Amino acid sequence: MIAERLTTLRQKMKECGMDAYLVPTADYHESEYVGPYFKCRAYITGFTGSAGTAVITQDEACLWTDGRYFVQAAKELQDTGVTLMKMGQEGVPTVIEYLQSHTKEGMTLGFDGRVVNENLGETFEEKLPERFLSYRNDLIGDIWSDRPALPAEPVWILDQKYAGESALDKLAKVRKKMKELNTSVHVLTSLDDIVWMLNIRGNDIPCNPVVLSYLILTEEEGHLFIQDKALNDDVKTYLHDLGMKLHPYDAVYDFISEIKGQNILLEKGYVNYTICQSLMAENTITDHMNPTTSLKAVKNPTEMENIRKAHIKDGIAVTRFIYWLKQNIGKLPIDELSAAEKLESLRKEQEGYIEPSFETISAYGPNAAMCHYQPTENDFAQLKPEGFYLVDSGGQYYEGTTDITRTIAVGPLTEEQKEHFTITAMGTLRLGNAKFLHGCIGVNLDYLARSAFWERGLDFNHGTGHGVGFLLNVHERPNDIRWKVAPERAKYAVLEEGMLTSDEPGIYIEGSHGIRTENLMLCRKAEKNSYGQFMNFEFVTFVPIDLDAIDTQYMAEKDVELLNTYHKEVYEKISPYLTEEEKEWLKEATRPLKK
Amino acid sequence: MIAERLTTLRQKMKECGMDAYLVPTADYHESEYVGPYFKCRAYITGFTGSAGTAVITQDEACLWTDGRYFVQAAKELQDTGVTLMKMGQEGVPTVIEYLQSHTKEGMTLGFDGRVVNENLGETFEEKLPERFLSYRNDLIGDIWSDRPALPAEPVWILDQKYAGESALDKLAKVRKKMKELNTSVHVLTSLDDIVWMLNIRGNDIPCNPVVLSYLILTEEEGHLFIQDKALNDDVKTYLHDLGMKLHPYDAVYDFISEIKGQNILLEKGYVNYTICQSLMAENTITDHMNPTTSLKAVKNPTEMENIRKAHIKDGIAVTRFIYWLKQNIGKLPIDELSAAEKLESLRKEQEGYIEPSFETISAYGPNAAMCHYQPTENDFAQLKPEGFYLVDSGGQYYEGTTDITRTIAVGPLTEEQKEHFTITAMGTLRLGNAKFLHGCIGVNLDYLARSAFWERGLDFNHGTGHGVGFLLNVHERPNDIRWKVAPERAKYAVLEEGMLTSDEPGIYIEGSHGIRTENLMLCRKAEKNSYGQFMNFEFVTFVPIDLDAIDTQYMAEKDVELLNTYHKEVYEKISPYLTEEEKEWLKEATRPLKK
Repeated sequence: MIAERLTTLRQKMKECGMDAYLVPTADYHESEYVGPYFKCRAYITGFTGSAGTAVITQDEACLWTDGRYFVQAAKELQDTGVTLMKMGQEGVPTVIEYLQSHTKEGMTLGFDGRVVNENLGETFEEKLPERFLSYRNDLIGDIWSDRPALPAEPVWILDQKYAGESALDKLAKVRKKMKELNTSVHVLTSLDDIVWMLNIRGNDIPCNPVVLSYLILTEEEGHLFIQDKALNDDVKTYLHDLGMKLHPYDAVYDFISEIKGQNILLEKGYVNYTICQSLMAENTITDHMNPTTSLKAVKNPTEMENIRKAHIKDGIAVTRFIYWLKQNIGKLPIDELSAAEKLESLRKEQEGYIEPSFETISAYGPNAAMCHYQPTENDFAQLKPEGFYLVDSGGQYYEGTTDITRTIAVGPLTEEQKEHFTITAMGTLRLGNAKFLHGCIGVNLDYLARSAFWERGLDFNHGTGHGVGFLLNVHERPNDIRWKVAPERAKYAVLEEGMLTSDEPGIYIEGSHGIRTENLMLCRKAEKNSYGQFMNFEFVTFVPIDLDAIDTQYMAEKDVELLNTYHKEVYEKISPYLTEEEKEWLKEATRPLKK
Repeated sequence: MIAERLTTLRQKMKECGMDAYLVPTADYHESEYVGPYFKCRAYITGFTGSAGTAVITQDEACLWTDGRYFVQAAKELQDTGVTLMKMGQEGVPTVIEYLQSHTKEGMTLGFDGRVVNENLGETFEEKLPERFLSYRNDLIGDIWSDRPALPAEPVWILDQKYAGESALDKLAKVRKKMKELNTSVHVLTSLDDIVWMLNIRGNDIPCNPVVLSYLILTEEEGHLFIQDKALNDDVKTYLHDLGMKLHPYDAVYDFISEIKGQNILLEKGYVNYTICQSLMAENTITDHMNPTTSLKAVKNPTEMENIRKAHIKDGIAVTRFIYWLKQNIGKLPIDELSAAEKLESLRKEQEGYIEPSFETISAYGPNAAMCHYQPTENDFAQLKPEGFYLVDSGGQYYEGTTDITRTIAVGPLTEEQKEHFTITAMGTLRLGNAKFLHGCIGVNLDYLARSAFWERGLDFNHGTGHGVGFLLNVHERPNDIRWKVAPERAKYAVLEEGMLTSDEPGIYIEGSHGIRTENLMLCRKAEKNSYGQFMNFEFVTFVPIDLDAIDTQYMAEKDVELLNTYHKEVYEKISPYLTEEEKEWLKEATRPLKK
């Protein structure tokens, strides 16, 4: 099947004079996750993982993906004629290096410019000189006869009691920033930015309540490119009252070609190449982080209050799930899929719950050592009454987005497992209890989460924390906690009051166990004095950290104190919503430890 | 006197058609400290502090300096006709802002291009458009009739037993880097870089054993511009054997004007404007950190071994000083100057001691709250048997450069003083005991030194650590420990094995006390495993931290353990060189504490 598709594609490439064709994993909006309509790379290679890039020439077809997917990709690419390129492995060229060596001057590289951002397009221009870039055709779209329809889920208005700020006020702030940057037009195409600014939500990407749309803002006007069928009359009136002129979703390309002589504010890494190339021909571009991105990262007081509420609800669901699991392990048959379903059913009992905020990672034993493991209908494990079960999940609530990981002892543990669990909890708690001067970025604080690992010659190979949206994407810029400095990002990443960030150290021992403990935390102002404005974090996630896996011999007195303080709060906040049996169990599960 | 000088200067400015004349504090090599020949700013304003910039117009003369010098500058500028511009104070324009508002298009800004680096010159070009920059005249030199002579101290060869690597090998490494960067000529004018590469030393700047010189390197040739009278025959032969062609010091400008059509490696922030402007007219410039800078920061095994030796010597001197002070305070009259002299006399007893590595900060009581306080013959305090005495000093030894701060209880302390002293010691010890993955920069680790302060809403307003040279400048790039990310610096600042860095948290309470505890530490490799290369630090400074000022109630168990471990090593390393009385005292001064 893949072979046939490749043959058809190669025929098309010949017709269009393309020597190589590149298919990334992206939609027209640089979204982190893409829906079925945009799974072109999966269509042409057969590889269904969430990340990968394909390059097809007349002689070869190659698929680049990262370490998470080497096993799955090898399986799925078998007999397809597609070669797996293991990213980061010695001797494996990058996509760019491959294109450099497999195309010559005068040749043509084809791709759909709508699924490549401007920064990547400019990298092609720079690194592949004397090649012609043909970006106006979607060859996969041309040959994909049974392509799923574009989603057009109903758009709904996020009430001000949840949003905390009117869309008109947000628009005014963005327009003020446009003016400060001496720009007359702002082109905004990232979906979470658009729906945040307009206080609307939808469901065009699973788990991400966004709406397929493009927005062009001037000082006086707003042009929203959106599918009409997604809008009811109330929403249309609402958008009209915000000053939005509505256009068909795909009319944006013609519209943009008419913009001339303007200074345009846009963020090249988040606007597609087709749009940027069209604009750059006749306008000047001010490449700057979308003003909405820094605005929405800083939650307002209403959002903060709602986030606390959402996390109590989520905490009740996850706490009850742990209780259920502890009671039933070894008695009922439980597997990774049924456990995740149970958790989802408990979340659904909570008022205001909408959907998961991402696909649940439900992993037993050695499976949890694969950071991004997800069970499938064809491949999942039974839980046995020994070792650890890890669940990383979250919910979308009207009051906000949650993201929590707990690792649960479902039976006897080894000493090593206890030590690893204990230092992971220490990392989460130490970071969450940081106090620091305003101006710090995550890079200043990451050591707190890692020191207990690094002292032992251990580490975890992922960032410690990411920003989280408000009833929006579970991964949100620009705040994060990591130790490697990305100079271009550093200036935007100062931790501000109202930012919501995850705190999720972990450890992954191949073939044995995986542990991660994740809380979300709001950044808050502490005292201000002659030294400056001090800041700290407020945990909003309240679910017990499994004391069955804690061994205080690895902890300092202060670590024990932090754990006890956290557990006291868990009990106070969650117990009022539990049954007597659950409450009794929680009392024990949050008991203070002694050093 | 200053008024007369200003009148003469203004006359000169008129003759040269200059509307404003700028006098920074610099030599021709962007050195951190300058000798008497280069004190033009002090000559024209009367302000003798180590940092400041003067701008003179026909109507005004202004002097910018920072908070350290507000009091001194106000005093020295009185009745001179020079206005003090307090940098960083609200409403005070920066030098650039002042020039923008006090010069108009078509006007001329004059300065000696040899004492302004290329980056600053380019800032003038950018921020002062339509002004003419006249940089070829040294007007202060023209009017300064009794200007001191240029120093020309004897140059000597640093034996390989100290340097650990031959100059030929160093030259080869630099030439390799030139090639990697596709450059044919390297212009190197920073003095510590030149003498490090050639394994020579001199004494042309007090405390910095450097030699006034410029170096131009090609693949085959080396041209050293240096004062002939500073060289004896041995040194000449040595330099000749390195392939160096010797030219008069100031012949560099004519030489450079002959270079054409080359790609030139130089670092714009460290080469003067006159040189760069001349080169840029006829060549292309590759602006890159001097290869010598990153090479010399990483001490080789011989240097590391020598550094340890130098620090034992220095540790003996400082330990004996503390003993002397503790025995004699309240009995002998001791003041800030005589205490510093005593310390210097004890250093002089050490074999291989050359000179101080910077001007000693000797500060009693509230004086220590001024970070950069130095007593003068006219203004110094008596030590009383109460509170703290702080001494920040260092030595140049054949085996390396030292830099140490100890704060010593010379009598009863308040509870607050003890708490402040204790958290300062905790900061020094926690940072020095960091373990981290290779790739970390100081920004990742600074929290360790500050957390005990920040938890209490306290801070210190200076960096935590700086690089230190080998028998060279006490402040050396690129390694440092600080919490604010400087994006442009981050990529060079990765902590590598062999880097020598200071670790010096402190606290400064105006009118009351100042505390700082400073050790130097070598960065070392720890274990390497699948997570990567782990790194840690090795303290090289061994002098007791005053237990009379420690209160364990503020310390975690781990902090006490770190202090005890450090003190054990201090006793082991230093006691063999002490008298019986000193040894007995040291035993007590390094006794293990209990939590």
